[in-house]
Amino acid sequence: MGENTQRWNELAAQIAVDSIRATTAAGSGHPTSSMSMAHLLAVLFADHLRFDVKDPHYRGNDRFVLSKGHAAPGLYAVLKAAGAFDDDALMSLRREGSPLQGHPVPIPEMPWVDVATGSLGQGLASGLGMALAMRMDTITARVWVMLGDSEMAEGSVWEAMEATAFHGANNVTAILDLNRLGQRGPTMHGWHADVFRDRALAFGWNAVEVDGHDVDAIDRAYTGAADDERPTFIVAHTQKGHGVSFLEDKEGWHGKAVPADKLDAAVGELGGDRHVRFTPPAPIDIKDATPFTPSDVARPAYDKPVATRKAFGDAVAWLAGTDRDVVVLDGEVGNSTYTEEADAVAPDRFVQMYIAEQCMIGVQTGLQALGKKAFAATFGAFLTRAADQIRMGTVSRADLRLSGSHAGVSIGEDGPSQMAIEDLALFRALAGSTVLYPADGPSAVALTERMATLDGISYLRSTREATPVLYANDDVFPVGGSKTLASSDHDDVTLIGAGITLHECLAARDQLASDGITARVVDCYSVKPIDVATLRTALDETGHLVVVEDHRIEGGLGDAVLGALASTGTLAGTVDKLGVTGVAGSATPEELRAWAGIDAAAIADAARTTLGR
Amino acid sequence: MGENTQRWNELAAQIAVDSIRATTAAGSGHPTSSMSMAHLLAVLFADHLRFDVKDPHYRGNDRFVLSKGHAAPGLYAVLKAAGAFDDDALMSLRREGSPLQGHPVPIPEMPWVDVATGSLGQGLASGLGMALAMRMDTITARVWVMLGDSEMAEGSVWEAMEATAFHGANNVTAILDLNRLGQRGPTMHGWHADVFRDRALAFGWNAVEVDGHDVDAIDRAYTGAADDERPTFIVAHTQKGHGVSFLEDKEGWHGKAVPADKLDAAVGELGGDRHVRFTPPAPIDIKDATPFTPSDVARPAYDKPVATRKAFGDAVAWLAGTDRDVVVLDGEVGNSTYTEEADAVAPDRFVQMYIAEQCMIGVQTGLQALGKKAFAATFGAFLTRAADQIRMGTVSRADLRLSGSHAGVSIGEDGPSQMAIEDLALFRALAGSTVLYPADGPSAVALTERMATLDGISYLRSTREATPVLYANDDVFPVGGSKTLASSDHDDVTLIGAGITLHECLAARDQLASDGITARVVDCYSVKPIDVATLRTALDETGHLVVVEDHRIEGGLGDAVLGALASTGTLAGTVDKLGVTGVAGSATPEELRAWAGIDAAAIADAARTTLGR
Repeated sequence: MGENTQRWNELAAQIAVDSIRATTAAGSGHPTSSMSMAHLLAVLFADHLRFDVKDPHYRGNDRFVLSKGHAAPGLYAVLKAAGAFDDDALMSLRREGSPLQGHPVPIPEMPWVDVATGSLGQGLASGLGMALAMRMDTITARVWVMLGDSEMAEGSVWEAMEATAFHGANNVTAILDLNRLGQRGPTMHGWHADVFRDRALAFGWNAVEVDGHDVDAIDRAYTGAADDERPTFIVAHTQKGHGVSFLEDKEGWHGKAVPADKLDAAVGELGGDRHVRFTPPAPIDIKDATPFTPSDVARPAYDKPVATRKAFGDAVAWLAGTDRDVVVLDGEVGNSTYTEEADAVAPDRFVQMYIAEQCMIGVQTGLQALGKKAFAATFGAFLTRAADQIRMGTVSRADLRLSGSHAGVSIGEDGPSQMAIEDLALFRALAGSTVLYPADGPSAVALTERMATLDGISYLRSTREATPVLYANDDVFPVGGSKTLASSDHDDVTLIGAGITLHECLAARDQLASDGITARVVDCYSVKPIDVATLRTALDETGHLVVVEDHRIEGGLGDAVLGALASTGTLAGTVDKLGVTGVAGSATPEELRAWAGIDAAAIADAARTTLGR
Repeated sequence: MGENTQRWNELAAQIAVDSIRATTAAGSGHPTSSMSMAHLLAVLFADHLRFDVKDPHYRGNDRFVLSKGHAAPGLYAVLKAAGAFDDDALMSLRREGSPLQGHPVPIPEMPWVDVATGSLGQGLASGLGMALAMRMDTITARVWVMLGDSEMAEGSVWEAMEATAFHGANNVTAILDLNRLGQRGPTMHGWHADVFRDRALAFGWNAVEVDGHDVDAIDRAYTGAADDERPTFIVAHTQKGHGVSFLEDKEGWHGKAVPADKLDAAVGELGGDRHVRFTPPAPIDIKDATPFTPSDVARPAYDKPVATRKAFGDAVAWLAGTDRDVVVLDGEVGNSTYTEEADAVAPDRFVQMYIAEQCMIGVQTGLQALGKKAFAATFGAFLTRAADQIRMGTVSRADLRLSGSHAGVSIGEDGPSQMAIEDLALFRALAGSTVLYPADGPSAVALTERMATLDGISYLRSTREATPVLYANDDVFPVGGSKTLASSDHDDVTLIGAGITLHECLAARDQLASDGITARVVDCYSVKPIDVATLRTALDETGHLVVVEDHRIEGGLGDAVLGALASTGTLAGTVDKLGVTGVAGSATPEELRAWAGIDAAAIADAARTTLGR
């Protein structure tokens, strides 16, 4: 028994009690998963996690990530004890309007949470992102991540284990709450702590085992973590529902509140309700930022054909040179997405994530939580690997600036595994997202520049091939806007494209002109939000729209156009959607666009058919 | 030098030469990544992989998965030498119509490939699925998986490492082609084979290191793999571009064909073109299947409210009891999706994947490649974790039967991290997919039953809450159909829902009736394909549609309805889309549907507004 033993145990008991009280009041939630980590939280928050509860956004604060987000009641309980909010707030758990949601969410009313968790296996990567942000800012704060044992089956955890060690982020400590029981029964490895210790060691971490209900042992493990040159992985042997006889290590209690008629018995076994308060250790002081010297990279400009992926890379390198908060993440394809150019300009703010897209997005989420403007890029097809992390970004209210290259069947010979053809559907469906799809170099630069100041998730889709320059380098491309490239007061039909298909639309217009058909051409570079007014006017004035996308016919530009039109009231006219409907093979880009029925000839045919000519 | 040394080396040299020849002819591709594994392939195919090249679908064949799919030229080269096809076919690599695509695809003309690869890190899980299928059929064949070193950063590989060891699939051998170089430069661990050996051991595998260009050492490693009680991981130290001085271990040659003017020099260094042919070892004999005794589980029927997730679980258990090829996969939520009922009926065909969704889909892909009708289920939100694996399922032409539970904001208190609200967008956008969304128990059973015989990717979305029974237990629910629950010859508006929102539409109909408004109600249980004719008729007859979904407003039912209508020609009328537009918090299901504007009151309001009443 150390001098702090009783203090920590009292706090731990209160965390357990409050986890039970709050969930019983809510009628749902995860008390037992909170109780297994009560001692781990108590020692951490009372004496190791250095933060100012009154200034949770202070950059010198240590950070805590509850990767096992379902144990939110435990987190809320310790935050209450730290003075973040009162017991009434705690007891509002899971009610409409309460910031104490079922899983932690970083909304303004819950500023002690930096990233949303609840989809398992995502916390460690976010923690690494925060640790890297601290390093970039020469802040020696620490990051602590609490993991559950079920989530150790998620590959995303091992991506983050790998990356944390590779990047030498020894300011990261992971704590594994090894309580043996998952949602539906025992986990794969039960209490075999050695399994996880050995794996952590093999992944380049320091690793220790500890009794997760022995506060003095926990304290020693935490103290030791700060001293190792590697990140430290603490495997804590715990019991789910610890401290209450009818919950402790019992199956059938995952995600269940204690019934009201058993509340007193449960709280009683833990020694009753308490009123423990504590002040967390003070955060470190941070120094003023060193002066920043912008690079001499100029804003990119083009007068010859260029691939939009190249223009994106050029623009990101320029932004990295001009803004010290810009960080660039690569999934080992920086020579394809051209983010390697940012590496040349700002190597200390270029993070190589290798082929680990889930970790890349998790790290990006952590970086932005600490104020970085992080851009991440890979093939659009491979961003789907991180679809869940990106989805969780909406819950985190994260500013994720993403680019997917090699869009559509237009990549050609590499074949369908490398083609992004469902990416617009993925990104359009995200809350508050912005989806951009430039057709040339100048618009790609302007839209990438705009992404640096956009909130939420923004996605720029880029093309592998070089495309002709359509716009002036100082043209403006508002989000939600469009460009009408050809129009008259007697247009017969409107051709709507974006990216590569805009060029096909322009060629189709020439083909149609030879038949005496006059086509308007609209560049919907902003797929979401989309230019509703221009589309409605086009329908009203021409009566016929043909929308063409190098994307699946579902969920992309065509659906966006239809949705926009439907929002304007009574529909009158035709809208033909052209998009990819089969599974491509290998062929040239031209052959594949013809195969998909999205090339100039197919567009012209569709227009003629619609017009009955 | 063993008796086979020269034979193997000759074959390896031919594989290298043919990889170069084919890619140079194509003008693109991955010769150097093929060359690093040439010796590994030569020994494997010539003397260890037991298969009948003339009968590639024979169930007793060993299976090979090229997880590093970009090295397809090497695979094609060894298949040519085995007599699968001739040199003309090899030289058609990457051309339009050639079955020799840039990455391997299991199309009818390429029957030696079982699953598509090319999105890295997916091959091992598919291999495990095949190994489990063999075990279920008491076939003692083996599975060999060739991995690249860059893809070892993918968490999906470690999910599969974990699962392969956990399931004791010692008929799996993984070969790591440790060639040190990724796409843009050195990999994370270079030639440190010990890193991967130690990790494999820590994940429960047998692990050995080998010189990947020493055919005799390779042969010994392969022989040893068959003898261990664990799956075996062979770390092969190799050189990218091995055997050609200007390619060997050189940076800058990833994914690049040798220029035509260097072709002779490259081939010359490898000893010139060859005409090696070989016959692979004969596959094992397989026994007749043992008789199958169906269970006595009856087809589920309901007359009281039931959650569609429960009806799905009931139906899958019934199917597992009646069809020996049905396999059920769980992501450690079988007590939420009710797949645990299938575990009770057919435990030998229930596979617990724990919380590793990517591996779950990969295993499912492998199972179906060997003829299993595999169902996999988890929360719809967490299926997004495997979005890339599901996407690749379209390239594999895989029959993936998927169900996502806990759809929409209607899950309530657990909050947004657990809500599937982008899943319809994800699944609609997949080639050849079927998207089903039943509103009650009988329709959930009928649609689950139908999934068992559907080709391609089928997705059934289910609801957490119990919902009233609307249909008779013997009602028929064709894919592509709908049910009109209320209609007359004087309907003012059509309310279109699916799943939970159908019930809100029915309630809205009652509210509108009290205002003298007559509403038609359509159940779009088949979201894709959708019932175009019924929708068009509804628009023509009522002039006003209100489409309601517990899903993001983009990419789901509303867009499906609009797309269907647009495909029928000239539009005339209004279509109001109601769906989720913000980020939910925790609250009751009723509160959240009201918040999202998708409850009966909101539907009725939308109808009144549209009608101007």
